Amino acid sequence: MAYDVIFDEIPSKEEIGERLEKARLELSKRQMLLKENKLPVIVLFDGWDAAGKGSVLGRVIKNLDPRFFKTYTYKPTEEELRRPFLYKHFIRIPEAGKISFFDGSWMEEVTDGYLTGALSKKDYKNRIASIQKFERQLNDDGYLLIKFFFHISESEQKKRMKELLDSKSTKWRVSKEDLEQNKNYGKVKEVFSEYLEATNQFVAPWYYIDSSNRKWCELQVVERMIVCIDTALKNKGRVAPVLQNTFPLVKMPKLADVKLDKTITDEEYSVELDRLQDRLSELHNELYRRHIPVIIAYEGWDAAGKGGNIKRVAAALDPRGYEVHPIASPEPHEKARHHLWRFWTRLPKEGHIAIFDRTWYGRVMVERLEGFCSENDWQRAYNEINEFESELADWGAIVIKFWVQIDKDTQLARFTDRQNTPEKQWKITDEDWRNREKWDSYEVAVNEMIEKTSTTFAPWHILESDDKHYARIKALRVIIKAIEERLAEDDKKKKSKKSGKKGKK
Amino acid sequence: MAYDVIFDEIPSKEEIGERLEKARLELSKRQMLLKENKLPVIVLFDGWDAAGKGSVLGRVIKNLDPRFFKTYTYKPTEEELRRPFLYKHFIRIPEAGKISFFDGSWMEEVTDGYLTGALSKKDYKNRIASIQKFERQLNDDGYLLIKFFFHISESEQKKRMKELLDSKSTKWRVSKEDLEQNKNYGKVKEVFSEYLEATNQFVAPWYYIDSSNRKWCELQVVERMIVCIDTALKNKGRVAPVLQNTFPLVKMPKLADVKLDKTITDEEYSVELDRLQDRLSELHNELYRRHIPVIIAYEGWDAAGKGGNIKRVAAALDPRGYEVHPIASPEPHEKARHHLWRFWTRLPKEGHIAIFDRTWYGRVMVERLEGFCSENDWQRAYNEINEFESELADWGAIVIKFWVQIDKDTQLARFTDRQNTPEKQWKITDEDWRNREKWDSYEVAVNEMIEKTSTTFAPWHILESDDKHYARIKALRVIIKAIEERLAEDDKKKKSKKSGKKGKK
Repeated sequence: MAYDVIFDEIPSKEEIGERLEKARLELSKRQMLLKENKLPVIVLFDGWDAAGKGSVLGRVIKNLDPRFFKTYTYKPTEEELRRPFLYKHFIRIPEAGKISFFDGSWMEEVTDGYLTGALSKKDYKNRIASIQKFERQLNDDGYLLIKFFFHISESEQKKRMKELLDSKSTKWRVSKEDLEQNKNYGKVKEVFSEYLEATNQFVAPWYYIDSSNRKWCELQVVERMIVCIDTALKNKGRVAPVLQNTFPLVKMPKLADVKLDKTITDEEYSVELDRLQDRLSELHNELYRRHIPVIIAYEGWDAAGKGGNIKRVAAALDPRGYEVHPIASPEPHEKARHHLWRFWTRLPKEGHIAIFDRTWYGRVMVERLEGFCSENDWQRAYNEINEFESELADWGAIVIKFWVQIDKDTQLARFTDRQNTPEKQWKITDEDWRNREKWDSYEVAVNEMIEKTSTTFAPWHILESDDKHYARIKALRVIIKAIEERLAEDDKKKKSKKSGKKGKK
Repeated sequence: MAYDVIFDEIPSKEEIGERLEKARLELSKRQMLLKENKLPVIVLFDGWDAAGKGSVLGRVIKNLDPRFFKTYTYKPTEEELRRPFLYKHFIRIPEAGKISFFDGSWMEEVTDGYLTGALSKKDYKNRIASIQKFERQLNDDGYLLIKFFFHISESEQKKRMKELLDSKSTKWRVSKEDLEQNKNYGKVKEVFSEYLEATNQFVAPWYYIDSSNRKWCELQVVERMIVCIDTALKNKGRVAPVLQNTFPLVKMPKLADVKLDKTITDEEYSVELDRLQDRLSELHNELYRRHIPVIIAYEGWDAAGKGGNIKRVAAALDPRGYEVHPIASPEPHEKARHHLWRFWTRLPKEGHIAIFDRTWYGRVMVERLEGFCSENDWQRAYNEINEFESELADWGAIVIKFWVQIDKDTQLARFTDRQNTPEKQWKITDEDWRNREKWDSYEVAVNEMIEKTSTTFAPWHILESDDKHYARIKALRVIIKAIEERLAEDDKKKKSKKSGKKGKK
């Protein structure tokens, strides 16, 4: 059923003028309040072509301080299209206290994709589910989302397009797609309606804007923004519910039950390392050819041997096709955004490999234990992380997560060695010693993390690293196996597609 | 796609025992906190037959103070089924500070209806939309909803039913429907999944309960309730967003533009009154026969003549088929619930007429102006009321709303007359005079109310009542016209159904 809104009567020109003057002033005051209260705001301008989204946006921002907002037009680059669906949107979320305006948003991508047939019904439904989660995650983290849908009637749209076409100077502004939209107004409206209804969530409701008159349109937008900002400011400090995990989990052992006596001889190590690196190298080419991305996440105790392990994996890869991201504590501009933002921005392209030396799991380990976030924040994070990784998996990425495990004595030996070896001293800090004192609380947190985030699509693998050589060989084997399985799956799919086609002939 | 939850490993018997003891105590402490903080809580126990919902509920409440909770089994009476879908649920919401437990909830009605074919796909979708609004309204008003879905596997269900059937003393507990559910487990699961997904709202998320073990089941429920209550207590005072009206509106004049010079001669009044009352009387029978309910709402200025007007309408009706509800300020037990609760509880049955002398519009008039509710409360109310009336209309009710209009001078004349006529003095109070002083603010509120709630399915009608006779005749005419139109519509539908059937032959 197509949406139906009967708008308020348009006030007189005088009234609009007066209210607009007042509202603009009020909105610019709100901008300062946002800044003070560190409230991040996202404003979506969606709706019909020729409804005037762009020109209204231009007028709205005229009265705002340009240091505290950014505007984005929905036009993804080739680079962006090679990343997961939400990537191009997630990377554009504002810092706390600032506004991101989107002239055309994720709605456009999804409804267009559906209308042109680029998205199947199933993919379309998955996109909607992704968007619902995305918007909920932002809201949970304190973001204010204001979503405007600019409405004009079929005849008004036709009239506007005709006017633009009739003048040489504006003719270029009407694209073939625009004309198509007007021609199929009824059908497009149905698709819009379905999307609007499905994404009209409590955490981010839609506001329909009567776009028949430009100034009135601006007034509705500015007045609504003021109300939304005031409501959000009143709700600061709201606690989001911790959602239950509904992702399929793999059963994992507790760290205490992991046997650490596994070793490998020097000879076997050297032979296997060569063999496995060669194999991984071959596979990397194949991944590149098939556009399959790989994300490898490393977590583990200090001095467990993450660095050396990563080095052996990376050594097998073509440097043009991979990147290692060492993750330290977040920079101020990262801290001012959703905790997953700095990982979204570091995602690999299709066919590329990203290796993370420490990861998004900091939230449920160091941030939890050091009180860098609230209890509600880290408790919510298990589900947020599973949602994040499921986006990666749905995109087609192979997600591999390593926990590099050693026992407490081994850590002490390695710390002492570092302390006593001048060229290794840079590797050991007071913080390492302090963290060591908290071993037991960390172990509780790590066990909970592994239990709650070992999903079937992104399981944890424990690398027994008292013998670092053993851990390196195991890491390579896990990676190779995961890639080989995916390639085999991929082959199977292609085959069944082919034979399916044959069958039809 | 069917839901998929892999639950945590069941803890040892000892651990469950210890945690349960602690959790029961904690929950009973929470009950006192609810009371202190005036937080109303609704807990739904939904899920598979034989999953143990009832027995777990029995155990959960054992440790609670019975003064502060009520339990309901989903089993509507005949009386309740003759009212709108949400009626039987809305009337059972708790007072602030208390808990309502539902052993089987609105989910059961909807999924069962869909599975048995009693609900068409379209009706099913409408029910879901109603439930989404209902749950959002409760949340907006500060209610905490905790929704549990009790999961057991197909084989476990089968086993349990067999065990019950095998013993003479428990045989009766397995119904034919229960067995059917197990037989069609896969299909039922798909329907459940669709419902669970559609109603898994941010304001009221679902929690799946692993019901393979009774004590573990209880522990999950009690621990989750504690977390949910704590979160809700932290969020007290949250401001809900004011949603935009998306119901189709009818354009109405401002009160100042209503001409009040309309009159009727005494003779015409007397003839018309007789004629119209006779006609209404006939129509009342027809409504009764066709099970069509009518709701007539009266609002208007003090001394505008509401009482006399209602009397002339009621005089035409069969006393067995109508009720007049005079609405004063809410009683404490009404005030302690959602503001629409006291109107839901007063709805007529199918085929009956309810006349409200003052209504649910108090929220946006007296409560707004006297500060009896917050600004956010009354601003939200326009949409809440439109949603309420749309439920009535979807149910099939004719909803007629009268604003009885007089001018300020006429009110003064009538007040003075009342003051000076001993037998009318009870009709005039100091409050009436105080309200009169606020005429202008009331006029602003009434205009906004009429503008925002004159929907196509429940429009306002203004009764010009400086001449009370004129207003009474107009009221009767409006009512008769609305009923006649509905009956004609009804006839048309029946006819097209019939001819549709003929066509098929």
